[in-house]
Amino acid sequence: MLFQVRMDVKIPLDMPAEKANEIKAVEKAYSQDLQRQGKWRHIWRITGQYSNISIFDVESNEELHTILQGLPLYPYMNIEVMALNRHPSAIREDDS
Amino acid sequence: MLFQVRMDVKIPLDMPAEKANEIKAVEKAYSQDLQRQGKWRHIWRITGQYSNISIFDVESNEELHTILQGLPLYPYMNIEVMALNRHPSAIREDDS
Amino acid sequence: MLFQVRMDVKIPLDMPAEKANEIKAVEKAYSQDLQRQGKWRHIWRITGQYSNISIFDVESNEELHTILQGLPLYPYMNIEVMALNRHPSAIREDDS
Amino acid sequence: MLFQVRMDVKIPLDMPAEKANEIKAVEKAYSQDLQRQGKWRHIWRITGQYSNISIFDVESNEELHTILQGLPLYPYMNIEVMALNRHPSAIREDDS
Amino acid sequence: MLFQVRMDVKIPLDMPAEKANEIKAVEKAYSQDLQRQGKWRHIWRITGQYSNISIFDVESNEELHTILQGLPLYPYMNIEVMALNRHPSAIREDDS
Amino acid sequence: MLFQVRMDVKIPLDMPAEKANEIKAVEKAYSQDLQRQGKWRHIWRITGQYSNISIFDVESNEELHTILQGLPLYPYMNIEVMALNRHPSAIREDDS
Amino acid sequence: MLFQVRMDVKIPLDMPAEKANEIKAVEKAYSQDLQRQGKWRHIWRITGQYSNISIFDVESNEELHTILQGLPLYPYMNIEVMALNRHPSAIREDDS
Amino acid sequence: MLFQVRMDVKIPLDMPAEKANEIKAVEKAYSQDLQRQGKWRHIWRITGQYSNISIFDVESNEELHTILQGLPLYPYMNIEVMALNRHPSAIREDDS
Amino acid sequence: MLFQVRMDVKIPLDMPAEKANEIKAVEKAYSQDLQRQGKWRHIWRITGQYSNISIFDVESNEELHTILQGLPLYPYMNIEVMALNRHPSAIREDDS
Amino acid sequence: MLFQVRMDVKIPLDMPAEKANEIKAVEKAYSQDLQRQGKWRHIWRITGQYSNISIFDVESNEELHTILQGLPLYPYMNIEVMALNRHPSAIREDDS
Repeated sequence: MLFQVRMDVKIPLDMPAEKANEIKAVEKAYSQDLQRQGKWRHIWRITGQYSNISIFDVESNEELHTILQGLPLYPYMNIEVMALNRHPSAIREDDS
Repeated sequence: MLFQVRMDVKIPLDMPAEKANEIKAVEKAYSQDLQRQGKWRHIWRITGQYSNISIFDVESNEELHTILQGLPLYPYMNIEVMALNRHPSAIREDDS
Repeated sequence: MLFQVRMDVKIPLDMPAEKANEIKAVEKAYSQDLQRQGKWRHIWRITGQYSNISIFDVESNEELHTILQGLPLYPYMNIEVMALNRHPSAIREDDS
Repeated sequence: MLFQVRMDVKIPLDMPAEKANEIKAVEKAYSQDLQRQGKWRHIWRITGQYSNISIFDVESNEELHTILQGLPLYPYMNIEVMALNRHPSAIREDDS
Repeated sequence: MLFQVRMDVKIPLDMPAEKANEIKAVEKAYSQDLQRQGKWRHIWRITGQYSNISIFDVESNEELHTILQGLPLYPYMNIEVMALNRHPSAIREDDS
Repeated sequence: MLFQVRMDVKIPLDMPAEKANEIKAVEKAYSQDLQRQGKWRHIWRITGQYSNISIFDVESNEELHTILQGLPLYPYMNIEVMALNRHPSAIREDDS
Repeated sequence: MLFQVRMDVKIPLDMPAEKANEIKAVEKAYSQDLQRQGKWRHIWRITGQYSNISIFDVESNEELHTILQGLPLYPYMNIEVMALNRHPSAIREDDS
Repeated sequence: MLFQVRMDVKIPLDMPAEKANEIKAVEKAYSQDLQRQGKWRHIWRITGQYSNISIFDVESNEELHTILQGLPLYPYMNIEVMALNRHPSAIREDDS
Repeated sequence: MLFQVRMDVKIPLDMPAEKANEIKAVEKAYSQDLQRQGKWRHIWRITGQYSNISIFDVESNEELHTILQGLPLYPYMNIEVMALNRHPSAIREDDS
Repeated sequence: MLFQVRMDVKIPLDMPAEKANEIKAVEKAYSQDLQRQGKWRHIWRITGQYSNISIFDVESNEELHTILQGLPLYPYMNIEVMALNRHPSAIREDDS
């Protein structure tokens, strides 16, 4: 099942750069692992923002929630979830 | 270059069903042609809405505008455009 | 899978009462059939509004979209969908 | 009498984890006690959010206010209340 | 139980004055009858608007909904309901 | 002259409970004194919120501003003022 | 007593120009009469809008409501009222 | 040229009263000097708010910006600027 | 003096194409004439919208209002005006 | 390709003036260098705000993102990006 998720990141200005970089590195590995599993189907940066638009393909709402709650940057994010369907005009088989 | 586009369709309640269906058929063909060209990369239905979330991959803002303005349903749509970038954590080569 | 759906109904002021009542009767039967199937788990009226808050329990986003699009009042509704999960503090087994 | 309540929790980033966990444990017990009494009828997590959608069945606005004000997480919550009615199309006897 | 209700009236510009006046007269009688019963406790005009702020004292959400739905101007109104409680600092006995 | 005032209180989380209670006690006395004078006509708690809806009956905008600015909780409040009139359908003599 | 009033005018596109001009002429006379009486203290056009910002100096909320409701363009306006006070830093005696 | 400016002041709760009073005194002198020069034509307090509505009469956008940026309370203000014109119905010669 | 103006055009769906084209042709000539005079400094299409972002360089708010009110599409536009200044970091002499 | 970017700057009130001035000086040099390269085509101050409206002419969304992310004031800014096209009515050759 497909979901669009928008994540806006606000790291506190007073977080030491070292700690921020550490969290970001863990975040990147976490995201790439899920991408390899096919659960985090797409991730794009929003131009000019510390934000991304992502497409998830998961078994259930529960799985999506568990993934999002596990994000290392979760405490510093604002997250919006939107349920998606295959579009009747889509020609890609794998965009169901 | 990548853009996310959200299209919300509001066909007037008094448009004859025949005319509406005709426009939708042309719209579908128009969309699928652009999908085959690789310019309209993804299209998903928003659950519960007569709306879609699409990803376009175009040469320029001008090309995107021309494509959108040419949509048969354009006069009945509200459209929002958001510029996207490849995300530094993305692992898909073709999601640049 | 659980979803909250809010439906706000705006029937045009110039629709003949007879036609409106007919649509509402079909809507009621449609809703009650889905309630009996366990897919439309709850439906409450919002006090003072021609609106309801409903909880759906469906197999997928696709099933939810098909149900909503099939509502006889669909052309006259504004619909908002929100994905829900079982809450870790919930004690009801059937509220998963 | 039925009410929908949405609770969005924002625990300050600098609250020690131990204190946060303690409050959450008391919150859970408080919620489950009210669920057992039948006053807190439903509680669902909003996917991707530290938020819930709950349905309360109380004697009066006063009882609802007392319950909400007594939430251990109350100082860290944004709360929205919406009065609900039994819906004329509902088939569940206990959803009045 | 107390509720604040805000009603914003938008009568269509093309409704004949005679019909509008007739509806308003019935509305006035309807409101005054409920005021005499003590259910419609207060009604104030919002300065400069075709809107009112009212306080209702009813047995239940259901009773409030029935009253509002019965308003002759109901099809032309936007209505917002807000549950109220007696305030701990209030000194009026009858403002419970 | 009548005004509706909505007050939303946000006491900083780090204010010592003792200080907060002291301010609230002075606030209560301040409010009750004005209620006895007939200037603060009504005060209701908004269900689930640390907020109130109040009706003031004052000589002028100046008097209302002076009263509001004198509230002990004023530095911690968000305040909205709305001018009201006697409603042509009102039957209470003292609601002018 | 002083009030700021913002008026946004939306004359229906299908109103005959003759009728619109007639209403506007009556509106102008109505406004200028109140300006001469000192009740409509200021009126400015908002640049680029069919809107004005006005300052009224009236005896009461009631008087303001009566004036606004009497505007010939009232059925085609959106109106916002904001209560004002003399500012402690003002040096103009007549801006009280 | 005329502009309406709305200024909303938010002095941090932890600023020492002495410092706040000092800034306010300089602000008052600054404002009154500009009032005497005829550049700050009007200033009104918004009832119940630490906010003002002002009318400026300046040579250019640049002059307005310089004046606003020079306000002693500028770092603690939210400012909104709206360009105004003489209204065709205005009868005051000096309200051009 | 510089102003940014955003114009969003909504031509009614039932306006005959011929009439719409005629208005657009006059609009184009009107705009180009002002561009040649240097008063309409820039005009850009917003991608995907029937909207433009323009920069005007005028003598006064009055001149801007007269220009905007004279737009052939003015009755079908929503217009927003924002006063601009030369930026202290700008290097273009003609962007003052 | 053209983009409008709005930047709203919020430097924390407790940043030492020396540090703030240093950042601003680097920001100015950074901006002027990009202006000389023709990538940052225009920059205007919004009257009364610590904000600017800028027009960028870049090769791609990626280039725009890199430029914006490199702004010395980036951590203290809110940024909005809007894709622009040459307007069919534009007469300036270099405004494509």
